[in-house]
Amino acid sequence: MTLLLNTNDTDRIDAFRATFARDLPDVTLVTPEEAFDPAQVRYVFTWLPLPDWSMFPALEIVFSVSAGVDQFATLPPDLALIKMSDPNNTRMVVEYVLSGCLACLRDLPSYAWAQRHQDWKAAPVRCAADTHVAVLGLGEIGCLAAEALRDIGFQVYGWSRSQKHLPGVTCVTGNEARDHLLSQADIVVCLLPLTPETRGILSRETFARMKPGASLVHVGRGAHCDFGDLAEALGRGHLRNAVIDVFDTEPLPEGDAVWALPRTFLTPHIAGRTDAQTGAQNVATNIARHKGGLDLLWQVDRRKGY
Amino acid sequence: MTLLLNTNDTDRIDAFRATFARDLPDVTLVTPEEAFDPAQVRYVFTWLPLPDWSMFPALEIVFSVSAGVDQFATLPPDLALIKMSDPNNTRMVVEYVLSGCLACLRDLPSYAWAQRHQDWKAAPVRCAADTHVAVLGLGEIGCLAAEALRDIGFQVYGWSRSQKHLPGVTCVTGNEARDHLLSQADIVVCLLPLTPETRGILSRETFARMKPGASLVHVGRGAHCDFGDLAEALGRGHLRNAVIDVFDTEPLPEGDAVWALPRTFLTPHIAGRTDAQTGAQNVATNIARHKGGLDLLWQVDRRKGY
Ligand SMILES: NC(=O)c1ccc[n+]([C@@H]2O[C@H](COP(=O)([O-])OP(=O)(O)OC[C@H]3O[C@@H](n4cnc5c(N)ncnc54)[C@H](OP(=O)(O)O)[C@@H]3O)[C@@H](O)[C@H]2O)c1
Ligand SMILES: NC(=O)c1ccc[n+]([C@@H]2O[C@H](COP(=O)([O-])OP(=O)(O)OC[C@H]3O[C@@H](n4cnc5c(N)ncnc54)[C@H](OP(=O)(O)O)[C@@H]3O)[C@@H](O)[C@H]2O)c1
Repeated sequence: MTLLLNTNDTDRIDAFRATFARDLPDVTLVTPEEAFDPAQVRYVFTWLPLPDWSMFPALEIVFSVSAGVDQFATLPPDLALIKMSDPNNTRMVVEYVLSGCLACLRDLPSYAWAQRHQDWKAAPVRCAADTHVAVLGLGEIGCLAAEALRDIGFQVYGWSRSQKHLPGVTCVTGNEARDHLLSQADIVVCLLPLTPETRGILSRETFARMKPGASLVHVGRGAHCDFGDLAEALGRGHLRNAVIDVFDTEPLPEGDAVWALPRTFLTPHIAGRTDAQTGAQNVATNIARHKGGLDLLWQVDRRKGY
Repeated sequence: MTLLLNTNDTDRIDAFRATFARDLPDVTLVTPEEAFDPAQVRYVFTWLPLPDWSMFPALEIVFSVSAGVDQFATLPPDLALIKMSDPNNTRMVVEYVLSGCLACLRDLPSYAWAQRHQDWKAAPVRCAADTHVAVLGLGEIGCLAAEALRDIGFQVYGWSRSQKHLPGVTCVTGNEARDHLLSQADIVVCLLPLTPETRGILSRETFARMKPGASLVHVGRGAHCDFGDLAEALGRGHLRNAVIDVFDTEPLPEGDAVWALPRTFLTPHIAGRTDAQTGAQNVATNIARHKGGLDLLWQVDRRKGY
C-alpha cells in the first residue's frame, strides 16, 4: 500500500515521514525520485495532476496540496479527490482579505500609484461602517472572511450556491441576487472555486454592474478574471482600485501587461500556504478513515467541481 | 461675544452657522473675510495659530480643528486650548492603523515595490497571531487602535506616560520598558502627540533597537520622525517596510527624497478627518459649558503640550 508524494519540498516530505511512521507505519511513502512499483500506488498527494493517471491501476484517492482543486478537472471520474483543509491556511487567507479590503477602503493602491508621480492629493476618507463588501463564495474561507470583515465593521454581503446563514451577514443565492449585490458593493471579494460556472465570472459585464468607484479583491483563481476587461475597467476609472493574488499564468511573466495595472496591488499567490505538518496529518487522517471504512473528509464533489 | 472661524471651508462654516443658530444664538460667528471687531472675539476656531494673538484682547479659548495641537506650542499660556475630539475621526484613524498594520503584515508595501520591477518573489506568510504590535501613545486614538488590533488577533503592546489597563493589551510606561517593547515588536505604530519629549522619537537609535525585519506605521506628526534615519534603516533592509501619513512639510514637496522611500506607502495626511458637524457641535457644547461655568471638555494641558 503506497502513497506517492509528488513533491520535492523536503519540509513536506519530512512531515509525511514523521506522521506516517507514527500513525500509519504500514503505508509505504515514495517520491518520484525513488524506484517504486506503480501498481502498488493507492494514494497520491500532488499539487498538479500527473501526466498519465493510467500508470496507477490501483489508485483510489488523490489528495490536493491546495484548497483549490480546479487543476484536477480532467481527473478520471472514479477517483476520489480530496481538497486541502487547514485552519491556519484559512486564517491566512482571511487576513489577506482583511488586508486587501482595508487597503482598498483607505485607497492605499491609489495613493501608491500617486506616489510614483509624487502626487499629493487627498481623497475623502471612507469608513468601514459605510462600506458594503460583497463576498463571492461562502465556503470554508469565504464564511470566515465575511465574519471577520463584519467584525471590523464593514457591511457584509455574501453569495453562494446554497443558502447560508451567518449572523450580521446578508447571504444570498442565485444570479439575480448576485447582480444586485454587485451593483451595491463598494468592494467585491472573490473567494470562489474555479469551475465551469465560475470561470470568467469577473468579466466586462460584472465590472459594468459594479458601482463606479468600487474595488476588487481577488483571491480565487486567475481564470475567474478576464484581465483585459479588468485593465479596461481600471483604466477608465470605473474601478477605483484592486488587490490581486492570482493570475492566468503564475509566476506572472516579465513584460505581462498585468504588472502595470493602475492603482492595483499584485501579490505572488501568497494569500495562503498550507502548513507541511497539517497537510501530512490531514492525509494520514483520511487514509486511516478510508482503511477503516469511514467516509472521507474534505471530499470534492466531482460533479460540482469543488 | 464673537467666535472667529478661521477657515474657508464652507461645509464647516455652514455647520457652525446651523449649530449656533439653534444652540447658542447669542454668539456672533465671523470669518476672516468679514468685517468684525477684534475686541469682541472671545473664541477662535482654527487649524493653525494666528499670526498675532495680541490683536484679540478678550480671547479666552482657542479651539483646534484637529486632535493634534503641537502647532499651538507658542500660544500665550493663559489661553485655554481645546483639542478636537470626534469619535468618527478616531474611528477613521483606527481603521487607517488597521489597514497599515495588515498591509505591513502581508508585505503589501514590499510587493508593491517588487511589482515596479516585475519581480515575482513570495515571502513567507505571517499570521497576526504571531505578530507583535507596539502602539506608542495610548490616548483617545491609541487605546482604541490597540483594542482593534487585538480584536483582529495581533499580540498588542502599548506605551504611554501614565499606566493604562486594557484587557488583552500589555501596557507599559517609562523609557526602559519602551525600549524593550521596541526590540520585541514586529510592527511599531506611532500615535503620540508631538511635544518636546516626543519630537524626533523615531530616530536612528529607535530604528536600531527595532528587530531586523520590523515595520513602521506612522500616524503621529512628521517631526516625530527623522526621515533621513528612516531612509537609511529602510535602505539597508533593517526595516522591512513602512506606512507613513505625516511629514515634515505637508504637502510633501515634489522632488523630496521621502517620495522615493523603498517599500513604503505614503498617504497625504488622511488618517483622520474631523466631520464638520461634529466639529461645530463640540465647539458649541464647550462654549455653552464655559458660559455656564462648567469645566471645559478636551482641554489641553499646556504644560504637557497635549
Ligand atoms: N490565493 C490563495 O492563496 C488561495 C488560498 C486558498 C483558496 N483559494 C481559492 O479560494 C477558493 C475557495 O476556497 P474554499 O476552501 O472556501 O472553497 P469551498 O469551501 O469549496 O467554498 C466554495 C464556495 O463557493 C461557492 N460556489 C461555488 N460555485 C458557485 C456557483 N456557481 N455559484 C455560487 N456560489 C458558488 C460555494 O457554494 P456552496 O457553499 O453552496 O457550495 C461555496 O460557498 C478555492 O477554490 C481557491 O480557488 C485561494
Ligand atoms: N494623521 C492623522 O490624520 C492624525 C489624526 C489624528 C491624530 N493624529 C496624531 O495622533 C496623536 C494622538 O492623538 P490622540 O487624540 O490619541 O492623543 P491623546 O489622547 O492626547 O493621547 C496621547 C497619548 O500619548 C501619550 N504620551 C504623550 N507624551 C508621552 C511621552 N512623553 N511618553 C509616553 N507617552 C506619551 C499619552 O500618555 P498619557 O495617556 O499618559 O497622557 C497618551 O496616551 C495626535 O496628537 C496627532 O499628532 C494624527
